[in-house]
Amino acid sequence: MAQAKKRPDTEASILKLYRQTGGKIKTVPTVSLKDRANFARFYTPGVGVVASHLAKKKEDARTLSWKKNSVAIVSDGSAVLGLGNIGPYGALPVMEGKALLFSALAGIDAVPLVLDTQDPEEIIRIVRALAPGFGGINLEDIAAPQCFAIEQALTKELNIPVMHDDQHGTAIVVTAALLNAAKVVRKKYTALKVVIIGAGAAGSATADLLLASGIKNIVVVDRQGIVASVREDLGEHKRALAERTNPEQKFGDLSIALLGADVVIGLSGAGRLTEALIETMAERAIVFALANPVPEIMPELALRAGAMVVGTGRSDFPNQINNALVFPGVFRGALDRRVGAITVAMKVRAAKALAGLVTKPTATKIIPDILDKKVVPTIARAIR
Amino acid sequence: MAQAKKRPDTEASILKLYRQTGGKIKTVPTVSLKDRANFARFYTPGVGVVASHLAKKKEDARTLSWKKNSVAIVSDGSAVLGLGNIGPYGALPVMEGKALLFSALAGIDAVPLVLDTQDPEEIIRIVRALAPGFGGINLEDIAAPQCFAIEQALTKELNIPVMHDDQHGTAIVVTAALLNAAKVVRKKYTALKVVIIGAGAAGSATADLLLASGIKNIVVVDRQGIVASVREDLGEHKRALAERTNPEQKFGDLSIALLGADVVIGLSGAGRLTEALIETMAERAIVFALANPVPEIMPELALRAGAMVVGTGRSDFPNQINNALVFPGVFRGALDRRVGAITVAMKVRAAKALAGLVTKPTATKIIPDILDKKVVPTIARAIR
Repeated sequence: MAQAKKRPDTEASILKLYRQTGGKIKTVPTVSLKDRANFARFYTPGVGVVASHLAKKKEDARTLSWKKNSVAIVSDGSAVLGLGNIGPYGALPVMEGKALLFSALAGIDAVPLVLDTQDPEEIIRIVRALAPGFGGINLEDIAAPQCFAIEQALTKELNIPVMHDDQHGTAIVVTAALLNAAKVVRKKYTALKVVIIGAGAAGSATADLLLASGIKNIVVVDRQGIVASVREDLGEHKRALAERTNPEQKFGDLSIALLGADVVIGLSGAGRLTEALIETMAERAIVFALANPVPEIMPELALRAGAMVVGTGRSDFPNQINNALVFPGVFRGALDRRVGAITVAMKVRAAKALAGLVTKPTATKIIPDILDKKVVPTIARAIR
Repeated sequence: MAQAKKRPDTEASILKLYRQTGGKIKTVPTVSLKDRANFARFYTPGVGVVASHLAKKKEDARTLSWKKNSVAIVSDGSAVLGLGNIGPYGALPVMEGKALLFSALAGIDAVPLVLDTQDPEEIIRIVRALAPGFGGINLEDIAAPQCFAIEQALTKELNIPVMHDDQHGTAIVVTAALLNAAKVVRKKYTALKVVIIGAGAAGSATADLLLASGIKNIVVVDRQGIVASVREDLGEHKRALAERTNPEQKFGDLSIALLGADVVIGLSGAGRLTEALIETMAERAIVFALANPVPEIMPELALRAGAMVVGTGRSDFPNQINNALVFPGVFRGALDRRVGAITVAMKVRAAKALAGLVTKPTATKIIPDILDKKVVPTIARAIR
């Protein structure tokens, strides 16, 4: 048993660890109250000066209060990890985990806010009401298609950045990984034929950012097959997506989409990948199997079927394509430069900057490590 | 100029200090991500175990998440300090200041949440939606009479403690101070004739807790005079208050109320106190002039007019009767014992416990110091 150095985590050991830990983040004072004068400055009566000031000049909240550095992580628990609609209590430890990363990686004061409602109009009203106290809003694990309307309404109404991370964090990290993977397989990035499995939040935002970064041939596949204009079962969102993608007007299931494709990006449980399917792709295929915790195909199988570059969302395989590489830096930059909204140009720039951190991409190194200290400042600089 | 050791704070120096400080609180990790295994435990994939568990057993959020120790400080900015309805931006530094005290004095993870709405129904809906992620709700600086309906609805609907601090924090600290002041002036506590200036959140809650602690003769005065049943201008809330108080059926202005009274407690801008008014009170009068930052009467004037014990809300005079003595301990106790609601019995017990910390009350020492380390645990023990 000498090789069993680390005891693997079990469900019971994880629960025990969480019970011992309580919160993954805590709040701490930035000033000492032992100095009694501080009590009078940071509480009453001194705080009255700042309260009166902000009542008149609310834009100064970004310099005089914690709004300078605070982000609300808001979820309704409707699409948590691969677990689906598990509600606010199920979402809470995930949002806390994000708050931990915000704090540990980017020094951001992030607060998990899980909502006991899944009514999009109500969510919009709640976030709008909460906005004065935060410098940014990270929407998280909200199901499609509601997530689109929620993000759109809030981005329009609020003058602080609002980002649904499942959409844009994912889109940015996938674009970065693909920029480098194209170099490894020696194919022209903009000429890549890309198949995306999943037409939800991550799938459609990734399609959009790949388009914005120059890729022309993208086919999106949902549970019913290729998202194509001829289909009559598409809602408004997927209909628009079908118009933007699928230039060859393909129609059919995943196997039709994959035939001759250079890249497949798994972003939902909408389809499993098999060795047989990978074998039908073009030479030197790129496979991003990002379903968590169980990828659409395990890396060794994809490689055996002929893929040249394989990425997953997991930390125990090479090429961890995880939006934790992105959201801390995006909000760091947005807060520091008081950016009012995250634009497409910023997202493309962030993807290119992230890719640029890997100077010599190889099949097992297309994306920086999540704990690489250069990641956050590099992405932050792209948000301007 | 040698005696000018401390430069007094000015508006400009306070604003500069806040600009340098940014947030008065920040969030920090409780676990290290340098250990890569922690990444997999506290973020994906390990967090999925806890998410699935809490989706089924939501009551375990109080042991497995930061709900164990988190409090939302919620304000709509409708009644901030003595500044009135200055809105959410004006309220933000005050709520941050409370979060600082929660953290520094009681180790509670408190989050300032200022709301860009003053619709009571909307506030109830928002707080209800946010409740899954918090172990307690501190309502703050919400104007009367809306504050009563909001607190009542939330207390009824939520299984975590909800406390409007302007009401109950104030009521507890005033009751504690009065218990000791009665000893100093050698009068029987329950026989005291008490006048309360202000029939808003603090005034009416204080009247109720004084009644609950045994005092029988209380007269409340608002801007229009004594809150009396014969008045026809009273809303529902004040009408009920008139029924519970004013046993002698007095009618008239503040001067009528004060004639022969043992105690006056200023809790609003509804009336200024003069030396002439104080002189009409009973011998060895007790004057709590709690308006902030400018008391209803300055202590030296009240003393000169014959008062024997004088308290204010300020830290630069003896007897600082401030609810900062109360709310950290109340929530510390409520979180630790997973109390679902703060009852009247708990509040009376907390007041008596707080008073008990001053073993030998004197005219200049009727209440413990805010930084006295025994205060929080003593009050916490009373919340059970």
